[in-house]
Amino acid sequence: MKITILGAGGFLGRKLAARLAQAGELNGRAITGLTLFDLNVPPPPAAAFPIRRIPGDLANPATVAEAIPPGTDIVFHLAAVVSAAAEADFDLGLRVNLQGTLAVLEACRRLERAPRLVFTSSVASFGGGQGAVVPDDGRQLPANSYGAQKAMGELLLQDASRRGMIDAVSLRLPTVIVRPGRPNKAASSFVSAIVREPLLGLPTTCPVGPDFAIWVCSPRRAVDWFLHAATMDTAVLGLDRGINPPGLSVTVAELLSALEAAGGQEARSLVTFQPDPAIEAIVSGWPASFAATRAKALGFAQQDGAEAILDAFLADDLKATKAEREMA
Amino acid sequence: MKITILGAGGFLGRKLAARLAQAGELNGRAITGLTLFDLNVPPPPAAAFPIRRIPGDLANPATVAEAIPPGTDIVFHLAAVVSAAAEADFDLGLRVNLQGTLAVLEACRRLERAPRLVFTSSVASFGGGQGAVVPDDGRQLPANSYGAQKAMGELLLQDASRRGMIDAVSLRLPTVIVRPGRPNKAASSFVSAIVREPLLGLPTTCPVGPDFAIWVCSPRRAVDWFLHAATMDTAVLGLDRGINPPGLSVTVAELLSALEAAGGQEARSLVTFQPDPAIEAIVSGWPASFAATRAKALGFAQQDGAEAILDAFLADDLKATKAEREMA
Ligand SMILES: NC(=O)c1ccc[n+]([C@@H]2O[C@H](COP(=O)([O-])OP(=O)(O)OC[C@H]3O[C@@H](n4cnc5c(N)ncnc54)[C@H](O)[C@@H]3O)[C@@H](O)[C@H]2O)c1
Ligand SMILES: NC(=O)c1ccc[n+]([C@@H]2O[C@H](COP(=O)([O-])OP(=O)(O)OC[C@H]3O[C@@H](n4cnc5c(N)ncnc54)[C@H](O)[C@@H]3O)[C@@H](O)[C@H]2O)c1
Repeated sequence: MKITILGAGGFLGRKLAARLAQAGELNGRAITGLTLFDLNVPPPPAAAFPIRRIPGDLANPATVAEAIPPGTDIVFHLAAVVSAAAEADFDLGLRVNLQGTLAVLEACRRLERAPRLVFTSSVASFGGGQGAVVPDDGRQLPANSYGAQKAMGELLLQDASRRGMIDAVSLRLPTVIVRPGRPNKAASSFVSAIVREPLLGLPTTCPVGPDFAIWVCSPRRAVDWFLHAATMDTAVLGLDRGINPPGLSVTVAELLSALEAAGGQEARSLVTFQPDPAIEAIVSGWPASFAATRAKALGFAQQDGAEAILDAFLADDLKATKAEREMA
Repeated sequence: MKITILGAGGFLGRKLAARLAQAGELNGRAITGLTLFDLNVPPPPAAAFPIRRIPGDLANPATVAEAIPPGTDIVFHLAAVVSAAAEADFDLGLRVNLQGTLAVLEACRRLERAPRLVFTSSVASFGGGQGAVVPDDGRQLPANSYGAQKAMGELLLQDASRRGMIDAVSLRLPTVIVRPGRPNKAASSFVSAIVREPLLGLPTTCPVGPDFAIWVCSPRRAVDWFLHAATMDTAVLGLDRGINPPGLSVTVAELLSALEAAGGQEARSLVTFQPDPAIEAIVSGWPASFAATRAKALGFAQQDGAEAILDAFLADDLKATKAEREMA
């Protein structure tokens, strides 16, 4: 089984590569080759199968074709200009998120057999706000360029799947927490920061109130979904290749309780509320919950609670995050 | 007021150009220039204002920019590879319907003031079938490449409107009848043919049963909607630039009654039922009705009944259609 990860240098791409390397197989079939593609390809994880590293730009069809060699069975398309960057630079977002996805389709069409294509779309392609529970057939009316480009990509891949060119599954991922690294300019940055920074012993501020709810998942669960999307029977999907996986609707207060459970009263006391109307204006448009009925019926695993999310961060990422901070 | 029609050589583009030429003004403002753009630009209608004809390919950004000169106030974007053709040639559809629409956006962004852009999307971007009454926030899950490309175009233009680059209104047009010309390979061809051919004294077959219902409008009403979309206040639209205009849900039996009213028992007897499972399979996926509540509240005129649609054909197109057939 030959696999390609596009966007292999990112937060989730690295986690996915590590999981594949560790497992050595997928659904009982041995992995015989893995290609890691990104603008910057990280050192490959240790694995029993050969790993190719292809640095390149997703918007360059020739490099993308090189990253999806003959015989590829599964393509994980995670490469993207993410929300804040696509909002800041409209042309860059279109070039990578739209034209890049067209290049991925072109490369897949050249293969002898239509490959399974797992595409990471986003809850940012939906509106609705705090009160919303988005149904499985909810309409995508994005309030940001990133979400619009993701929804366009979904339409393209859905249609190409109908035509038999590819066999796509598009996962509208929740906000994935706890993201390692430093707080950044993404409007959702605080959702990870309010637990990560205190666990590193650092103070942080929360721009929204304790009742603010958000749809989240852990990176572990996201990778579980990737693997399920890569191996599931897609015949049952029919036309509809878009999946709202069963994340967790969690409030800031619940995250802070989990933080206290994991790091004690001391950690909890490092978070102070400091309302930021600009951030509140953006994030209050995001739907706080999804029905996710179809995804559950299709076998996508439910995200477990906030404490499990924090435990995963402690087990998987705290040490490396600490080391990085100390090096800088 | 400077206006451009892209796709000015088509069925609706010609009707729109003729209406603008006749009116000389729009919403009380004089038209000072009109550009007609198409692969093949027809002779311009007589008008009191200058008309430029620009032949060219929508997928060529330089020609599209020429067709949308500085100072353009309104762009009607009607150019498209339509349903059967986009299904037969996926790449052509993407090139014109997607990349062409990107070229239109590029040209509009170069203008000093964001122009009003009226985009013709289609009911083919929805599924649902005979039982459906599509709500205003219905999800677009197209079962054909043309519909997918139209829905992608809508997302692009909606997002660009949110960013203030353009001021778009996307009309999901019903099947427009009575289309002049010969029966063609479009799956919807029969909807016009079952009234047009008998009114020309010619026999024709109907591939679906008398109870089959379809969402239609007349070309007159479509042009009314174009002009309303070009002049309405768009501030009330918010994020949502997609309009399902108030067409008419009509059955084959109702169309044939209107035919009998217009052309007598003789005309009616020229239609025979000849089930065609291939056509039925395609058209039975199209939604037969829309709520269109929002469009009505926004001032889009309701389509009047089947008899009015036939009367419009008799008044506007029968003579020319007859003459064309005799010439061939
Ligand atoms: N992390 C989340 O909370 C979240 C939520 C919803 C959706 N998603 C989606 O999941 C996917 C992975 O997310 P992530 O958190 O790992 O993002 P990330 O930003 O950490 O990784 C994205 C990767 O794409 C690469 N990339 C960007 N432009 C490229 C180009 N032109 N050519 C080649 N590579 C390019 C980047 O170098 C980066 O390594 C993305 O598609 C993202 O939109 C993520
Ligand atoms: N007529 C209908 O029933 C109907 C229904 C729903 C939506 N629409 C949409 O309304 C619009 C107008 O419809 P119509 O019936 O007049 O279609 P049409 O096919 O009669 O006209 C389309 C025009 O676009 C032009 N065109 C195609 N490719 C081009 C290219 N590469 N460069 C420049 N011009 C190009 C064609 O030459 C043609 O003149 C289309 O966008 C169509 O998709 C029509």
